[in-house]
Amino acid sequence: MNDARVARVMTNLEARGLKQMFICDPMSIKWLSGYYTMPMERFFGLLLVAGENPLMFCNRLFPDASDACNNIVLFDDTDNPIPLLAQHCLHDQTLGIDKELVAKWLLPLMDSKAAANYVLASSAVDDARSIKDEAEKQAMRVASTTNDKAMEWLRSQVKAGVTELSIAERLLGEYRRLGAQDHSFDPIVSFGANAADPHHEPDNTVLQDGQIVLFDVGCKQDDYCSDMTRTFWFAGEKNIEPDDLSYRVYETVRKANEAAEAIVRPGVTFAEIDKAARDVIAAQGWGEYFTHRLGHQIGLVDHEPGDVSSTHDEPVQAGQIFSIEPGIYIPGKVGVRIEDLLIVTKDGCEILNSYPKEFTILH
Amino acid sequence: MNDARVARVMTNLEARGLKQMFICDPMSIKWLSGYYTMPMERFFGLLLVAGENPLMFCNRLFPDASDACNNIVLFDDTDNPIPLLAQHCLHDQTLGIDKELVAKWLLPLMDSKAAANYVLASSAVDDARSIKDEAEKQAMRVASTTNDKAMEWLRSQVKAGVTELSIAERLLGEYRRLGAQDHSFDPIVSFGANAADPHHEPDNTVLQDGQIVLFDVGCKQDDYCSDMTRTFWFAGEKNIEPDDLSYRVYETVRKANEAAEAIVRPGVTFAEIDKAARDVIAAQGWGEYFTHRLGHQIGLVDHEPGDVSSTHDEPVQAGQIFSIEPGIYIPGKVGVRIEDLLIVTKDGCEILNSYPKEFTILH
Repeated sequence: MNDARVARVMTNLEARGLKQMFICDPMSIKWLSGYYTMPMERFFGLLLVAGENPLMFCNRLFPDASDACNNIVLFDDTDNPIPLLAQHCLHDQTLGIDKELVAKWLLPLMDSKAAANYVLASSAVDDARSIKDEAEKQAMRVASTTNDKAMEWLRSQVKAGVTELSIAERLLGEYRRLGAQDHSFDPIVSFGANAADPHHEPDNTVLQDGQIVLFDVGCKQDDYCSDMTRTFWFAGEKNIEPDDLSYRVYETVRKANEAAEAIVRPGVTFAEIDKAARDVIAAQGWGEYFTHRLGHQIGLVDHEPGDVSSTHDEPVQAGQIFSIEPGIYIPGKVGVRIEDLLIVTKDGCEILNSYPKEFTILH
Repeated sequence: MNDARVARVMTNLEARGLKQMFICDPMSIKWLSGYYTMPMERFFGLLLVAGENPLMFCNRLFPDASDACNNIVLFDDTDNPIPLLAQHCLHDQTLGIDKELVAKWLLPLMDSKAAANYVLASSAVDDARSIKDEAEKQAMRVASTTNDKAMEWLRSQVKAGVTELSIAERLLGEYRRLGAQDHSFDPIVSFGANAADPHHEPDNTVLQDGQIVLFDVGCKQDDYCSDMTRTFWFAGEKNIEPDDLSYRVYETVRKANEAAEAIVRPGVTFAEIDKAARDVIAAQGWGEYFTHRLGHQIGLVDHEPGDVSSTHDEPVQAGQIFSIEPGIYIPGKVGVRIEDLLIVTKDGCEILNSYPKEFTILH
């Protein structure tokens, strides 16, 4: 159990008027305790109660957690874990609830009168997780350095006749050669008009001369995630020049990315950062084609709470790590996205990706 | 939308006194509508209300669902979807809730007074999904035939010096060659004492002569899952004979598997099937080492609700498909599991795996 992290969460709970919380997000439990398991359909969680040791609830089928936690309630598949949890809650107090707790457990817990009331309290954990400590920042730098190298490899795979899937499927091998353990998310490889779907899944599309090539990829290394997007122009043997629209869209996205990164420092709000990029795109008349938030926080998980969007009015804080990933998606025509990760520093930010962003023509 | 399946769910809801249900499990929505998306942290669901067309809730970033559903509420990342859902519920009625709905959405929905009350109702969907129609049975046969062939390939990979991970990582390629699309779950490859952990993850353990080799693997083909376990003895060049304990444990597990499969027919309860296997193991004094349920239902997902366990007193029904997977796990010493899938027929069962179960020594 990482006592410093538990204390930060307890402080956040107290600030919300809460004396107890049930946490079930496996990554939050890993962050707090060092113990990780994927419980799937089985019950798993960590109960924090003011003044008590954290109490972990584990199915006996899970890997042994006793190295991470000295206070564990064990149960079998044939046990009902809800009364076990309920008996350890303060019945006359509100219980903070993890936003990921599924109805399968939450509704019976509420029926069991475990607590006086139930409120979402994940922000107490998420806010603590959002501010990375030095070890976490260093792991994030390493993962992004690997991702920069992987982008160089991806670029070297761009040749006539290759398919999206064939590149995507070989990326994991390259990540492992570079020291990473896994993808941090399913890689996106998009050729031509496929890039206009921001969530395109790599398929058997064959690369043609004169197409856009978009890579949105990330790895996990020492448990921390990287995430970067670069977009290229493939001229091929026919040496097809980029069309004017693709070039202008690219340059607009690049400027939007740089405009947003330029204003990041403590005190600026997430919404202001989103707006800095969105304004650049809207000024070219393409506002309606930037269909998603500007970015997301990242760490042990590729998408962590607290997004960089127009509705998130909180100021950014030193130690937070998030993506800046503006895009323009004109259906059937062109799609471009450019994404970096950055760490907020005390007077600006440290950009974790150094892979170039200049418009680049490949042959 | 598959009207017949929607009607089966509505009938089940009515039998539970419910006029409405909100479904969010992506696989249940796929089963009902043909539409599939992985919403991740975003809101997604299907509202069923008696007498109304099913109503789907989709973020605009999801793939277009209009081919599957003619009644869709679309929203953006910046919208709050809960009021959109609440306004379509019958406010004076109980709302059936999907067991997978996370607290992040459920607690605000309850605060919004969308309905008079909220109860778990996934069994209405799960019971319907549990009885496979002819097309589903055929897909399950095909996936298990592929899995039988993959087991033959796995067996051919068993040689001195190989690691668990190197076999596990090449299995996907073999599945694809055989026509499958993906794993149905992360494959388990366990050598020696690793097999005594039923959830062992393949690692760099190197195979030694005179060890047990356990494969628990499954593929997805035409969206349906297979799942089979076989355990071998690797004698190797040194031709190390199986020790007596390993042999007796193996034979006991095989008999437990066969005893359970022998009694499956409509009307027998899941608990009775579990007991048939458990009794064989207990009779040898190894009851405490059979630490999990006997099996699980399977279909679009590898673990579907309604397990084969001592606490599940319902009778099995024709059309249900589940695993029979007894195991004995003596920590640090030996682990054996033998698993088949089967379909309950009108007077017995059809076993989907034909890969032999006799004790087999590899060299």
